[in-house]
Amino acid sequence: MRRLVAHKAKSLITNATVSLLNPHRQSSSSPSPSNYCSRLARFFTSLPSDTSMASHNPLSVDSLNPKVLKCEYAVRGEIVSLAQNLQQDLKANPGSHPFEEILYCNIGNPHSLGQQPITFFREVLALCDHPTILDKSETQGLFSADSIERAWQILDQIPGSATGAYSHSQGVKGLRDTIAAGIEARDGFPADPNDIFLTDGASPGVHMMMQLLIRSENDGIFCPIPQYPLYSASIALHGGTLVPYYLDEATGWGLEISELKKQLETARQKGIAVRALVVINPGNPTGQVLAEENQREIVEFCKKEGLVLLADEVYQENVYVPEKQFHSFKKVARSMGYGDKDIPLVSFQSVSKGYYGECGKRGGYMEVTGFSPEVREQIYKVASVNLCSNISGQILASLVMSPPKVGDESYESYFAEKDGILQSLARRAKILEDGLNKLEGVTCNKAEGAMYLFPRIRLPNKAIKEAESLKKAPDAYYAARLLNATGIVVVPGSGFGQVPGTWHFRCTILPQEEKIPAIVSRLTEFHQKFMDEFRD
Amino acid sequence: MRRLVAHKAKSLITNATVSLLNPHRQSSSSPSPSNYCSRLARFFTSLPSDTSMASHNPLSVDSLNPKVLKCEYAVRGEIVSLAQNLQQDLKANPGSHPFEEILYCNIGNPHSLGQQPITFFREVLALCDHPTILDKSETQGLFSADSIERAWQILDQIPGSATGAYSHSQGVKGLRDTIAAGIEARDGFPADPNDIFLTDGASPGVHMMMQLLIRSENDGIFCPIPQYPLYSASIALHGGTLVPYYLDEATGWGLEISELKKQLETARQKGIAVRALVVINPGNPTGQVLAEENQREIVEFCKKEGLVLLADEVYQENVYVPEKQFHSFKKVARSMGYGDKDIPLVSFQSVSKGYYGECGKRGGYMEVTGFSPEVREQIYKVASVNLCSNISGQILASLVMSPPKVGDESYESYFAEKDGILQSLARRAKILEDGLNKLEGVTCNKAEGAMYLFPRIRLPNKAIKEAESLKKAPDAYYAARLLNATGIVVVPGSGFGQVPGTWHFRCTILPQEEKIPAIVSRLTEFHQKFMDEFRD
Repeated sequence: MRRLVAHKAKSLITNATVSLLNPHRQSSSSPSPSNYCSRLARFFTSLPSDTSMASHNPLSVDSLNPKVLKCEYAVRGEIVSLAQNLQQDLKANPGSHPFEEILYCNIGNPHSLGQQPITFFREVLALCDHPTILDKSETQGLFSADSIERAWQILDQIPGSATGAYSHSQGVKGLRDTIAAGIEARDGFPADPNDIFLTDGASPGVHMMMQLLIRSENDGIFCPIPQYPLYSASIALHGGTLVPYYLDEATGWGLEISELKKQLETARQKGIAVRALVVINPGNPTGQVLAEENQREIVEFCKKEGLVLLADEVYQENVYVPEKQFHSFKKVARSMGYGDKDIPLVSFQSVSKGYYGECGKRGGYMEVTGFSPEVREQIYKVASVNLCSNISGQILASLVMSPPKVGDESYESYFAEKDGILQSLARRAKILEDGLNKLEGVTCNKAEGAMYLFPRIRLPNKAIKEAESLKKAPDAYYAARLLNATGIVVVPGSGFGQVPGTWHFRCTILPQEEKIPAIVSRLTEFHQKFMDEFRD
Repeated sequence: MRRLVAHKAKSLITNATVSLLNPHRQSSSSPSPSNYCSRLARFFTSLPSDTSMASHNPLSVDSLNPKVLKCEYAVRGEIVSLAQNLQQDLKANPGSHPFEEILYCNIGNPHSLGQQPITFFREVLALCDHPTILDKSETQGLFSADSIERAWQILDQIPGSATGAYSHSQGVKGLRDTIAAGIEARDGFPADPNDIFLTDGASPGVHMMMQLLIRSENDGIFCPIPQYPLYSASIALHGGTLVPYYLDEATGWGLEISELKKQLETARQKGIAVRALVVINPGNPTGQVLAEENQREIVEFCKKEGLVLLADEVYQENVYVPEKQFHSFKKVARSMGYGDKDIPLVSFQSVSKGYYGECGKRGGYMEVTGFSPEVREQIYKVASVNLCSNISGQILASLVMSPPKVGDESYESYFAEKDGILQSLARRAKILEDGLNKLEGVTCNKAEGAMYLFPRIRLPNKAIKEAESLKKAPDAYYAARLLNATGIVVVPGSGFGQVPGTWHFRCTILPQEEKIPAIVSRLTEFHQKFMDEFRD
């Protein structure tokens, strides 16, 4: 019960805090969801009725799986709830806030901010959903010739052309053939369709590997700090220990082998069996693209220390600087002469990122190499319990690994769409980066790739003390103030991990290009006022 | 290492066994995958090289999460691997077996056996995938007017009409509104869209609840025996204890409260905290439809004993007998006067079953009622870690809960398709049931609902001894022999659980109607020969 009370208190104090931070809220007497002060008042009187509910109800929060309670997921956490409340408020009381819309820069969700899907991909998906129109004459007026041809090919690859059937637990074999061919073309090394497990986005693949590897809290998974919180959440849910290695902000979020060695030794001294190393390349939230030489060192380190290499490569198409290039870890390992039996390596890919950004389709795959047949059998079994990933997502995963080629009817429009998106993302990243670097006490590394900037903010002591007095992390306080002043949603750095005593936030580069200058102005104005308020 | 060897030995002996059982295999000298004897031989020589691989490779099967190793999933288990090998064999060597095709009666996967999708549903999905064709004139020649209208409505419900964006973690709010309205229309009691969590099929919802409830092996989940092995697999993966209650085959798989009481007491005496009761209605693999009076007793039992009621209601549209009707557990609880705060109840629904059978779309939802806000927050958090379920599946879930209505352009063709499928399933169930009941020593309860028959087979002692000598469960031996003789894939009863000493198999009613008589003949002929071979 004590924990429940503490939990409620924490969440309500947080809400109340934001209310107190927001003068627009307090002046409103509407019955909108923003009426936090009365919610706070209710909190102190609501315990008796809750207690009585608990006696009827077998399920108190205290009685839940503690691993679930421990899990945190910042990118959809508290800041997003606050934003949703503000959005409702704006709808109910237009003009009640100094901004007209909420800008969700908290999550890599391109279509939610207006990015349009790649036409060819959607044509093929629609035709596979409703194949009876494929041989109707009107269809040729509505769809490109190569999308019709591709849909026929895909239907031929699916047993009985049944897009409504469960597939093989690893995904439709023909689609895995296409993906393997795409990987071969990308890397110049062979890929085996039997190594591919199609998944609903990359997340289920990550969960599956954590489930496989983690036996107890004595099993550790090496993760970069800052990291994408899927990893910390999944490790918590499976009851393992996150073993951190810090990326070096001063060298553009460099990954130093000496740091890996040091942290591995520390973990081992604590009795942690470190089982795997997670690398996110291009980096999330940090945006760096690893140099090939650095990747070789990482492969060598995993090989030497007996670690499974879990390579999050979902941003492989998102590289914005000419001096850097994406290399898959499998390509790097093979080019070092390591074959399939030499190093266990999993590469995660998703249809949610890249230039396509099809988050809602939940497509992706993991390429699993270097595992014994017995271990592979266990992965297959876990995949089987979930039957299969969704077939539209499977089809889309095959499309992104095998897009239109020169000479195809759709090629030119496809390339124009792709190039337009990637060029624009590069420009947006640069404008935001420059804008952030002009702010007092803010430094921001370049987004060489991925979809995010992760600026460091040096907060005045007065601001830190104010946040502490409200029982909030200083960067969470900053992010809440930013949201209330501008409608811009960013995720506090504390949700990703950071060197203790430093503060950051993650901001996507995804708002539409024409909105970026206004975002920079609003950020600048807010930051100036915030610093004026708290400057030591 | 010992466990690895034992595991390999078991799997290879099994394979070898089937080879020995199958004279067609042994006579073949082809290089097909069926050459199990040489595989068996290789097994005894392969240990040294495997050991050396283990020294390179950090990951032995012994070092994996023991919960994963413990998990079993029969409907995609060993019998399916055997069937896939046979299928490859048939392709490589046509005529090498006494049948021409493999009939997958192991899994409820209607489209894989030729069932066609409901046209209206697929029209809407295709239009939502590629909305740019919605206002083109050719589209009106290809799509029904109400599918075009529905697609517009759905796009209006999705923020920014972005079918490619991650949705709210519980699913698109507008689609949840539609689903809640469908539940209200079905039950005659209110449903709240905030209680709906859209999921990729029903399985992820089940996993989520197990993850929430199970803290350790001292936490028990009540499951019917026989049960659908998703439950046993999920409980094993989350490290809990399956507490069985036996359905009474003699009374048509009746669910007796006295049995629940007895088993609850036994579990509690062993120190197991039983947290939830799983009910599958209509039953899987057993096909019974619960009487409303029986459901009331179950609700009362859960209420009294403080159990969460997990209601698997994915077969709610699959009822084949006029004397039975589906009632949701929520409707039953509400009609008893229990409100939202009185009983924690989760209802699972899926687009994979019903007359639509859209397994590949991975759509579904769970309706979560009677949980405190704090517990709901934890469910929301876990859902958030996976971001959201796929949007096409979400759309389809809204469609099955809100199909065309009388007067809509598609209504007549929609109703004809739906009724044709359900009437045909009822006829198929009856013919198979009658055929099975004519077999020596076989009794089969009626499939009142769902998609399966679960006949009991009384095997001769000689057959049981033969199976035991091959280290196989007798029903697994029977199923393997049946497969090798007829190409029909059924799942041994031991995969679902059964009263010790009784033997069963699960067979879907899904093969195309015109094939059913031949299936009955092949089954009959095989069974006759099997009994002649082993009769005591």
